[in-house]
Amino acid sequence: MKTAAREEERASTVKANAHTVTFGADGPLRLESGAELPSVTVAYETYGRLSPARDNAVLVCHALTGDAHAAGFHGDPEREKPGWWDFFVGPGKPLDTERYFVICSNFLGSCYGTTGPTSIDPRTGAPYGLDFPFVTIRDMVEVQRRLIDHLGIERLLAVTGGSMGGMQALQWTVSFPERVAAVIPIAATARMSAQGIAFNEVGRQAITGDAEWKGGEYAPGAGPSAGLALARMIGHITYLSETSMHRKFGRRFVNGNGRSYGLARDFQVEQYLHSQGDRFVRRFDANTYLYLTRAMDYFDLETEYGSLEEAFSRCESSFLLVSFTSDWLFPPQQSREVVGALKRTGKDVAYCNLESDQGHDSFLLRGNRLGDVVEGFLERTSAGMKA
Amino acid sequence: MKTAAREEERASTVKANAHTVTFGADGPLRLESGAELPSVTVAYETYGRLSPARDNAVLVCHALTGDAHAAGFHGDPEREKPGWWDFFVGPGKPLDTERYFVICSNFLGSCYGTTGPTSIDPRTGAPYGLDFPFVTIRDMVEVQRRLIDHLGIERLLAVTGGSMGGMQALQWTVSFPERVAAVIPIAATARMSAQGIAFNEVGRQAITGDAEWKGGEYAPGAGPSAGLALARMIGHITYLSETSMHRKFGRRFVNGNGRSYGLARDFQVEQYLHSQGDRFVRRFDANTYLYLTRAMDYFDLETEYGSLEEAFSRCESSFLLVSFTSDWLFPPQQSREVVGALKRTGKDVAYCNLESDQGHDSFLLRGNRLGDVVEGFLERTSAGMKA
Repeated sequence: MKTAAREEERASTVKANAHTVTFGADGPLRLESGAELPSVTVAYETYGRLSPARDNAVLVCHALTGDAHAAGFHGDPEREKPGWWDFFVGPGKPLDTERYFVICSNFLGSCYGTTGPTSIDPRTGAPYGLDFPFVTIRDMVEVQRRLIDHLGIERLLAVTGGSMGGMQALQWTVSFPERVAAVIPIAATARMSAQGIAFNEVGRQAITGDAEWKGGEYAPGAGPSAGLALARMIGHITYLSETSMHRKFGRRFVNGNGRSYGLARDFQVEQYLHSQGDRFVRRFDANTYLYLTRAMDYFDLETEYGSLEEAFSRCESSFLLVSFTSDWLFPPQQSREVVGALKRTGKDVAYCNLESDQGHDSFLLRGNRLGDVVEGFLERTSAGMKA
Repeated sequence: MKTAAREEERASTVKANAHTVTFGADGPLRLESGAELPSVTVAYETYGRLSPARDNAVLVCHALTGDAHAAGFHGDPEREKPGWWDFFVGPGKPLDTERYFVICSNFLGSCYGTTGPTSIDPRTGAPYGLDFPFVTIRDMVEVQRRLIDHLGIERLLAVTGGSMGGMQALQWTVSFPERVAAVIPIAATARMSAQGIAFNEVGRQAITGDAEWKGGEYAPGAGPSAGLALARMIGHITYLSETSMHRKFGRRFVNGNGRSYGLARDFQVEQYLHSQGDRFVRRFDANTYLYLTRAMDYFDLETEYGSLEEAFSRCESSFLLVSFTSDWLFPPQQSREVVGALKRTGKDVAYCNLESDQGHDSFLLRGNRLGDVVEGFLERTSAGMKA
């Protein structure tokens, strides 16, 4: 990044406040599967200030491999990486931390501070690994609700998130209709598609097929790095669009115009995917990837509640659904299904299908109108809540 | 399949005549890479009869994992599987074997009888494995040209094929403009896209990441079966469409409505992919998969000839391009690019974007108008050739 742009970014950034809280003193957390967790620690961050009326809290839900560090810096912007949604959360940004109190928590089952497969099982003193119970989006939202209780917030101004974060946003208003004023699911769906399940399964297969996976009992720090990298490479293809891949890499060779006539990484797109895979292995846990993709697979508001109309019937929030024209993993049609069901149940719903050629990952990238539509919607919601 | 339908299929089927021929007595085959093969054996089949004027020959080019057995039965329909394009090739079918002499050869580098990585290297007496030189679509077509010479056919009435077979059809008219009257590339492209290369690379990675691959030196009959199955599963997702996967499997569970809350194959779509992978391993060779996907990656008429217009400038054939609306691996736009370049160079070109929700695999499936458009086009070409 150019120095000027970097300076500007630092100037408009927010202080990230990292916290943890542990639940379980009042009894174990009972999961949707029927299994129980004796205690759950939650890693979360906050940005901005909670208003005296406690009516300006926005919960951000991260996606599959994200974490609680949504924005800003903890201390030293010279040495740290900003949060994953830093262009979206901060002073004067769409989730304006001068106005809103933004919360982001690492969700249940993840590997960034909240209890998950890499955590120590208090019953054995060793990491859970595959002994960790499988969790669902509903379980994740239940843990987030405890966090919101802990923060003394009765009603959230909004819940938002992209992809799997958008699934959580939808689940929030279904699980706790009276506790959220507005819901903004971005590039999301009310039920994982067959194609989505298929891509998740080949990713899992890449991991469990790696001999280093060892039935899930790899040592901390070790593990199926080739398989996990491959899972990420597969996933990454689905996060982009054909158009954006063509624009970024086309058919360009790594070395001029040279074919290796071999198995080398001849094309820049191959090089790029491998580098994404390698980076991912350094920051993510293989068993966790299995658990979280499974939680996505299971997400299905339609089947769980009989119909989408039934699922949304008790909701009291207003809705803004956002999709991206080139997203083929959670295509616009899946947002339109949600919008249709909400309209049929008489809910207050707005929908934007934003022009973008960057595919599913558009919600993480600048260069589309996401900020404008979310900012406007939040302002109206906020005004309505105070009125 | 129902008995009546099966009987009908047998009744309208053609006798498959299997042959092999070996080239190399007049010197080694020099490949595009500069490497040489001392000899090349080609496995091929023919259906119907070559006319006295030798003007009714149609060459069918198979796709990535196909073989020379395009139609009919060799002997006993009770015990054999019909060829992979049996609904398309036979008496009274679009490639009518009462009228046309249909030829299908297993292409260079494949593992169904034509020389490839599983063949014996005459210099060592052992299978080539990774010592086999990397081949290109142009090399495959050069070998097919030798076969056509061998059969005494000066000019083919038509060359057709789907997917990688369509690439060969395009290469045919570019390499040997005077030797083919009509070209029918189906669900094809003039250059592999970045996304296509990406999917091929994750497939290759699945194979080479399997410890049983052993640097390509696995024993005959052994090999990276888990990795090869995974490569097929990944590929298979790209051959279908989101709509057809939804229609076929939706979110149906294997066991009623039961989540396993584990890593079992909960969903029918997972079960299906695994069964596709398992079947594939029993019939295909892992190293061969590496070679053939690489040949696809390298296919790029634009770069190789400077522009598509330049590539097609010398072509003397007429063209029928066919794409399918739901094909996202070789989407209609890629056929339109070819059509545009052909029109700009004043060629005789027709184009059909056929309505189908079955994705890239539509060319292998009944239920669309492919037969009608190809039949009509061939009749006109045949009439023009005789006139």
